[in-house]
Amino acid sequence: MPSDRDEMPARPTISEVAAEAGVGRATAARTLGGYGYVSPEMRERVLAAADKLGYRANALARSMSTGVSHTLGVILADIGNPFFAGVMRGISDTSRARGFDTIVLSTYEDLDEEIAAVNVLIDKRVDGVIVASTAVGPGEVAHIRAAVDRGVPVVLVDRAVASLDLDAVVIDNRDAAREAVETLIAAGHRRIGFVWGPPAAQVPATRRELLAEASRNLWTDGERLRGYLDALDDARIPFDPDLVMVGRKTEERVTQEVARMLALPDRMTALFCTETEAVTGALRALRAAGLAYPHDVALIGFDDSAWAAVMDPPLTMIEQPVHRLGAKAAEVLLDTIGGAEPRREMHTLRSRLVMRSSVAPPAS
Amino acid sequence: MPSDRDEMPARPTISEVAAEAGVGRATAARTLGGYGYVSPEMRERVLAAADKLGYRANALARSMSTGVSHTLGVILADIGNPFFAGVMRGISDTSRARGFDTIVLSTYEDLDEEIAAVNVLIDKRVDGVIVASTAVGPGEVAHIRAAVDRGVPVVLVDRAVASLDLDAVVIDNRDAAREAVETLIAAGHRRIGFVWGPPAAQVPATRRELLAEASRNLWTDGERLRGYLDALDDARIPFDPDLVMVGRKTEERVTQEVARMLALPDRMTALFCTETEAVTGALRALRAAGLAYPHDVALIGFDDSAWAAVMDPPLTMIEQPVHRLGAKAAEVLLDTIGGAEPRREMHTLRSRLVMRSSVAPPAS
Repeated sequence: MPSDRDEMPARPTISEVAAEAGVGRATAARTLGGYGYVSPEMRERVLAAADKLGYRANALARSMSTGVSHTLGVILADIGNPFFAGVMRGISDTSRARGFDTIVLSTYEDLDEEIAAVNVLIDKRVDGVIVASTAVGPGEVAHIRAAVDRGVPVVLVDRAVASLDLDAVVIDNRDAAREAVETLIAAGHRRIGFVWGPPAAQVPATRRELLAEASRNLWTDGERLRGYLDALDDARIPFDPDLVMVGRKTEERVTQEVARMLALPDRMTALFCTETEAVTGALRALRAAGLAYPHDVALIGFDDSAWAAVMDPPLTMIEQPVHRLGAKAAEVLLDTIGGAEPRREMHTLRSRLVMRSSVAPPAS
Repeated sequence: MPSDRDEMPARPTISEVAAEAGVGRATAARTLGGYGYVSPEMRERVLAAADKLGYRANALARSMSTGVSHTLGVILADIGNPFFAGVMRGISDTSRARGFDTIVLSTYEDLDEEIAAVNVLIDKRVDGVIVASTAVGPGEVAHIRAAVDRGVPVVLVDRAVASLDLDAVVIDNRDAAREAVETLIAAGHRRIGFVWGPPAAQVPATRRELLAEASRNLWTDGERLRGYLDALDDARIPFDPDLVMVGRKTEERVTQEVARMLALPDRMTALFCTETEAVTGALRALRAAGLAYPHDVALIGFDDSAWAAVMDPPLTMIEQPVHRLGAKAAEVLLDTIGGAEPRREMHTLRSRLVMRSSVAPPAS
């Protein structure tokens, strides 16, 4: 939870008032910010506690009382993805603690819906927008520029967009992927599959063409692909287009593609999955082929979950700091709304490889 | 997808105009409803197609053009729960097809947040509200009544609230739970654990007290408990408070409680889990005790997911019609916004028990 920035440390914070009043921090923030619903009884308790402690509104609280709507707008690619749900929780917790409500729209990766969502949020007079944008090129960002031009601060989350010079809160996708693939290489693997790559119709024959294709698509996916290639390069393992899945990203296609990779003459012995659905799709393919992890195929996936931990054997997974990702995006946005100059930089948070039991040396 | 209600069947529908124009239905609906962002090129194609087919706005489209905001507000208990994410997708798809945007707020089961969320949505001038309410008693519904009194139609989803005479779209929780427990009984089990029950400090000693406790808490949980007790009653299996978990609902507590149940002298041989976290918590407890399903303990859980299907052995789970649940709630709400009289009834959708491999007879 972000700390209050009082001009004088001796002054009590909203948290201290909340503790004194025996109420939640959000309730205290609402009361002291003069914003939103607080029951009369709660309000009285908060005001009594504030009085007792000698609380005086700090700079942020003052800026809050001059804001228009005390609402942040959030545009996510898909709330159905537990990753985005976790990010949203981080945004929501941080916003609440500072007395802001959040409203969410989901685009399901449709740019037209994202454009409409930005317009809805401007229409609803939000004070700022956090967006996990589906835009990939300079020709697709006019709606975001338009919001910024109208004075609505925008922070990108999860996905940087090359043509947008805005604050972006992301994870170290490239390093995370490289570390995962290095872990597989260190266990002795050289035939390592990658699901999934960019949505090309077929896998480009060369590394260079594949990267060019990736750079025309989602930044996150491209970074994970770059990390995979980095690790292969470092170990002098040649790129093999047969071991990369491209095209539509569905669990069904992953199952088909992994089945195809398993049937190659020079058999794949390890698999790196860049999404949850890539993991479950791969597990289906293994079962259908009568193969078991880690014995027949070693496996590392994105993103960690309660399910991954209870699988038998439990899965080695990359854990993203989902809550922190959202919290940080909200902090950057709220600081900007509070009057700070946007730093327009990439804020990169570290992910973590959670070692469990889905990696073993290749069966000989 | 809901069909259009044209007064004359010969008139083309928005879907037909969309097909003729080669655009998505949402784009056609936006253009013809005179609402939201549509690119100039798309707009022209839609209008040309509408002209060619002789399209005339139907009653709903006309009501749309007179509405205030063409936005639905959705209040969910927790978007981080894949169940609610699926419901949201259903709401969103149906709303879009009718030219409405949706904004979402998540309360994380906090009534104060729900009250604030209703106020935010009224402030944002939504045309109607769908809510999975955390309210359980007549003293907790004033905010919802207030919205209805202000002319904002409200539809409940997932959870009925006894003291609210509103349309509610729910699943057959009681029947679903009964069927699951009957399946365990039919396999030969009589010592069947239940996680989780109402948030009481300790399990009431009698069936009657337990039900009284349940009726002071979430409707959904109470219905699932009633279904469990129904199945026991039908099979003349006495209620044993030692086999019911109550209290705080977290994965960690489930793990502790299942460990406790596994250590009972008259050992539990089967377990019914009413939530995803109850399933993953139970699996952790089994592993920690060195036990395996279905051999040592048979297992049935709520809600089905891609993970449940790739577990080894795959899990027998209750699948809720999550998308349909959301779609139906949106349909009922949009009909009301379009001028239909609310039916103020419970719309009950059927769930499905997906039989896989986590149920076997008790080990003898």
